[in-house]
Amino acid sequence: MKNYITKKAIIVLSGGLDSCVTTAIARAEGYELALLHLNYGQRTEARELQAFNDIADFYDIGHRLVTDISYLAAIGGSSLTDKSMAVEEAEIDQARQAVPSTYVPFRNGNILSIAVSWAEVIHATDIFIGAVEEDSSGYPDCREIFYDKFNALLACGLPEGVRIQVGAPLIHLSKAQIVQRGIELGAPLHLTWSCYQGEAAACGICESCRLRLRGFEQAGVKDPIKYLIR
Amino acid sequence: MKNYITKKAIIVLSGGLDSCVTTAIARAEGYELALLHLNYGQRTEARELQAFNDIADFYDIGHRLVTDISYLAAIGGSSLTDKSMAVEEAEIDQARQAVPSTYVPFRNGNILSIAVSWAEVIHATDIFIGAVEEDSSGYPDCREIFYDKFNALLACGLPEGVRIQVGAPLIHLSKAQIVQRGIELGAPLHLTWSCYQGEAAACGICESCRLRLRGFEQAGVKDPIKYLIR
Repeated sequence: MKNYITKKAIIVLSGGLDSCVTTAIARAEGYELALLHLNYGQRTEARELQAFNDIADFYDIGHRLVTDISYLAAIGGSSLTDKSMAVEEAEIDQARQAVPSTYVPFRNGNILSIAVSWAEVIHATDIFIGAVEEDSSGYPDCREIFYDKFNALLACGLPEGVRIQVGAPLIHLSKAQIVQRGIELGAPLHLTWSCYQGEAAACGICESCRLRLRGFEQAGVKDPIKYLIR
Repeated sequence: MKNYITKKAIIVLSGGLDSCVTTAIARAEGYELALLHLNYGQRTEARELQAFNDIADFYDIGHRLVTDISYLAAIGGSSLTDKSMAVEEAEIDQARQAVPSTYVPFRNGNILSIAVSWAEVIHATDIFIGAVEEDSSGYPDCREIFYDKFNALLACGLPEGVRIQVGAPLIHLSKAQIVQRGIELGAPLHLTWSCYQGEAAACGICESCRLRLRGFEQAGVKDPIKYLIR
């Protein structure tokens, strides 16, 4: 299948539902894939890394980079990395204006910058990230305009002749649509991990679990992973 | 001197001439300062860190963050971090089109992203970086447009009500003008370190040493640091 004109893409793969489906989409589009995982000192890092490797194994992708950016935990400001803050049991049905406590300041700016550095070295032309605008309301770095502006930065901030662009193929999808897209593409949703709190079983009550469970419910599909509370 | 309306700024302080003068400029403008130093696996890291701390001590600034981003060395692609590549003895008098081997892919994108994360947490409104367009020709992330586009990203990529902007006060100065500005402001140029190769004494022949030496020469001032070759 591989040939000399195959374009190479880096996928930011946390190991969650969204990034798994993003991987499946890029693969279906024919890209040669390289997978980037970031440890940023989040509570569930070990479980996420396992999911990353399980998904990479499923797709038989050897080109992997796991990078430690736990300085984000040292900087603080998020319940995802700061164990003195509680992960809120989010009221996801209620429209919220505020940024959730799980927001890690400028996390996606940091992640994309690393992806760009790696892309320059391995000659990848595309970076895909599983950001979702609707379901991640309140995260300012999950909006389409963020990626538009980041691409404008890349259009002028790279060496002459180097072109790299960031794509966010899920940006306008709902969680239910993401589940459906994943199933259509045969993505290994049973290997993914989304919970912000648990490691043995997903908690079922954190913001990420509730968005995920609602997505599966609306898609009319049973979530294949194990929950403590359902 | 400190009062409740003092604005806080983060300075990206490598410990070199440019970032030292940038620190002096921000201080002269009345900002309360916080200093950020990055270890990205460069050859001369220990010496640069000493310069960072010496300059911070000189200005009596306690708010310091030293962050390890040596993943940039793991990613590779630069003679600054990859010891299998030679640091070129640059022909700085010759106009060059190519990106120098010392270019670290998207380094300033990574650095600024970390600075933004920290700025959000400590409520800094400004980030200053000592990028220089003219003398750093060939580094695509040292051009004014890079900072303009980065600021456009920040204008839409931060939580509601948070405003952070990046300034590059040296961007259009020559090395000679930077030396002069530093002397006018009483910046501790004797504590700075710019060499890409040496630690005990500066090599005097790498690109960074030669640009620095030429700057002092054109400013009609003796460089106060020690060189192996002059």
